[in-house]
Amino acid sequence: MKTNPRVLFVAAIIGAVAFTSAVTRAADPLPSWNDTGPKQAIIAFVENVTAEGSPEFVPPAERIAVFDNDGCLWAEQPMYFQAFFIFDRIKALAPQHPEWKEQEPFASVLKGDVKAALAGGEKSLLEMAMATHAGMTTEEFEKIVNDWITTATHPKTGKRYTEMVYQPMLEVLTYLRARGFKTFIVSGGGIEFMRPWAERVYGVPPEQVIGSSIKTKFETRDGQPVIVRLPELNFIDDKAGKPVGIQQHIGRRPVMAVGNSDGDFEMLQWTTSGKGPRFGLIVHHTDADREWAYDRESHVGRLARGLDEGPNRGWTIVSMKDDWKTIFPEK
Amino acid sequence: MKTNPRVLFVAAIIGAVAFTSAVTRAADPLPSWNDTGPKQAIIAFVENVTAEGSPEFVPPAERIAVFDNDGCLWAEQPMYFQAFFIFDRIKALAPQHPEWKEQEPFASVLKGDVKAALAGGEKSLLEMAMATHAGMTTEEFEKIVNDWITTATHPKTGKRYTEMVYQPMLEVLTYLRARGFKTFIVSGGGIEFMRPWAERVYGVPPEQVIGSSIKTKFETRDGQPVIVRLPELNFIDDKAGKPVGIQQHIGRRPVMAVGNSDGDFEMLQWTTSGKGPRFGLIVHHTDADREWAYDRESHVGRLARGLDEGPNRGWTIVSMKDDWKTIFPEK
Repeated sequence: MKTNPRVLFVAAIIGAVAFTSAVTRAADPLPSWNDTGPKQAIIAFVENVTAEGSPEFVPPAERIAVFDNDGCLWAEQPMYFQAFFIFDRIKALAPQHPEWKEQEPFASVLKGDVKAALAGGEKSLLEMAMATHAGMTTEEFEKIVNDWITTATHPKTGKRYTEMVYQPMLEVLTYLRARGFKTFIVSGGGIEFMRPWAERVYGVPPEQVIGSSIKTKFETRDGQPVIVRLPELNFIDDKAGKPVGIQQHIGRRPVMAVGNSDGDFEMLQWTTSGKGPRFGLIVHHTDADREWAYDRESHVGRLARGLDEGPNRGWTIVSMKDDWKTIFPEK
Repeated sequence: MKTNPRVLFVAAIIGAVAFTSAVTRAADPLPSWNDTGPKQAIIAFVENVTAEGSPEFVPPAERIAVFDNDGCLWAEQPMYFQAFFIFDRIKALAPQHPEWKEQEPFASVLKGDVKAALAGGEKSLLEMAMATHAGMTTEEFEKIVNDWITTATHPKTGKRYTEMVYQPMLEVLTYLRARGFKTFIVSGGGIEFMRPWAERVYGVPPEQVIGSSIKTKFETRDGQPVIVRLPELNFIDDKAGKPVGIQQHIGRRPVMAVGNSDGDFEMLQWTTSGKGPRFGLIVHHTDADREWAYDRESHVGRLARGLDEGPNRGWTIVSMKDDWKTIFPEK
């Protein structure tokens, strides 16, 4: 599949990169990555598509890279971080909802029984999301998210959730942007749950965040226009929904896609089946000591098809244990 | 409502701009505008929010400007240009749809009776849009639009539709981007009808085009993933839908909004009621000689509430006849 000029060009680039980093280590765009295959593949791809005169040069306008969020840019164990937010909101709102004491799944949340609360699967989670994410204006919800994300801490690590982002991925985002890429988040998580902090934490502005959403309505309250969040599903940005969300928001097929679960399979498939150079990357959670180790049997971030088919499709699999020097940013 | 420092600062800027353009005319960012109130107001606003040290400085990330398309960036008479596209598509598809010969509104289109074809109002137009905009992949549709937009000509002027864009607005788009703004289109027109040419004609990339849409579906055909366009309405980006579309796609309230009809009223209202400096602009079609003159009674681009309430809301009204030197770009 690879043409000779490309192989030669890539080889020349890898040589140039190796030479450059021997001269000055500060030039390494991915210092938290071990010098293994995935790091080399990322750099070779980026250099190949951005070097003037490269046979596979991609114009800046087409340099679109999409990243999943949960388990890809930040951790997702023991459950999606947005579920912690939902549970905290249920506790905060309980005084206004006395009926929740008797009503599942809310009753289990209030008793602190996470397992029972999640026993109803996605249907229950959706019900809890609607009850906690709707009924206020977009600006009120933004403030609620901001207050939570700057104070809440993870039950196991004690860190703020935004401290549980992956340092190696922050470096990839920065590297791509320095090379003229636009970086987008394409997540199953709530679009308005990510936007308030994605710019500060990832450098991704709100207009480059794509996610699941509920419907909203424009209206005038006390003479002031507001956008009100409604308890009605608008879009689920997961699995086959991801290419649809990409087309809706970006309107152009990305050249690079990064994910970690089978919920990202269609996004990688859509991205890498376009013409010209494409790059697919899957983060495999293999580090039980520094993070978590899970794949085929996990209730969160299940990864099976990506492992089975990814390599044949030319996708790069990152082993967090072997390929990452650092997991989370140092304070 | 205006504070003294702001008035002084804006006055100083206008003085500086006048001085600069006396020194070098090449510095005029809006050469196709007469030196009347609207041009002065646009420049004063942009200088005010982008000058370092300005009391009303807006950081680059928040410099979001939204523009309607039909009647604002390009003409819209005697009917929306997308309607010409729909009619041409009906004629092209007619051999595959023998039933259209007897079925309204298609029968009238095929007989060339535009008035009868449009007699059913929005419902008929939507039916014709569905019949012509769905049933193919996103890439096939992009090609259809590209083929049409590069060949079809306007029945009155004989120009290509993309030659009927407003030169003064192209200058505003360019000026804003030079000052660090991100420019977005927020149109009632079809999002995938505008994207194929918006970058070439307006300098607005597909990810900054917001419009009405139909639903789509990701699937695999002959082993290749495709996104298929479905004959089902997804979103109408008009009137109260415009602030909703802005929030969905941008996630941040714009600081500047430009429209021309009452379909843009809520977008201007939402934009200009935010805190800090805001700018609302309405293009009033007053030039029957060089373009068209219409407002309160027009079946396309009706403008009444904007004229009645706009000035009190601090919005600037542009009279095409009095404020624009040029309408369409010179070849």
